[in-house]
Amino acid sequence: MKAIILFGHGARDNRWREPFDRLAELWRVQHADLPVELAFLEMMQPSLEEAVTSLGALGATYITIVPVFFGQGGHLRNDFPVLLNACQKKFPQIALSATPAVGEDPAVLQAIVDFGARAL
Amino acid sequence: MKAIILFGHGARDNRWREPFDRLAELWRVQHADLPVELAFLEMMQPSLEEAVTSLGALGATYITIVPVFFGQGGHLRNDFPVLLNACQKKFPQIALSATPAVGEDPAVLQAIVDFGARAL
Repeated sequence: MKAIILFGHGARDNRWREPFDRLAELWRVQHADLPVELAFLEMMQPSLEEAVTSLGALGATYITIVPVFFGQGGHLRNDFPVLLNACQKKFPQIALSATPAVGEDPAVLQAIVDFGARAL
Repeated sequence: MKAIILFGHGARDNRWREPFDRLAELWRVQHADLPVELAFLEMMQPSLEEAVTSLGALGATYITIVPVFFGQGGHLRNDFPVLLNACQKKFPQIALSATPAVGEDPAVLQAIVDFGARAL
């Protein structure tokens, strides 16, 4: 069974996660057959490992991790591969893969441009 | 004259800014009559003040600042209003306003969901 993890940075202020909760809710409404979990690099729960554990308990055997980051800096180039590799070793029965950051997607960038244009 | 600033967090790794450069380029192609500048909260140039200075020199009198952040945590709730207020005092001839973070926009969230769905 396939599943998805939406992976964000995390922040001290709990309100920071509101759009992430909305993202997961949108996913559940539109892709009810594909379980989703949020996961955070730091300062928020669940961790990537906890999210993989939850999805594994539901029967997930293929998990795609989508980094909900704009830029690919140190967090995605250094911290994330280490974390992903550690998770893969811990869950050899689940195939983990990752997409580029959502900021690499032209449609996401276009939505941001359109949001700005509507605001002017 | 109206103008826009796309305001991001900034990062140590210069490659982090690549999607921001693409955002500004998209804007220039699609909205050539509305000058755009990037600005960063920390670790990258230009600062918000430098970006306002550049757009003011082009004749901007109304600048809309779009926070290219997902969540609205401490940076946007605390640091950004202080920065914006200081800029407004320094440039009384330019009307500065700010939108919510792009992560508040349903179309941006939908684009992220669609990106994830295509990746599975």
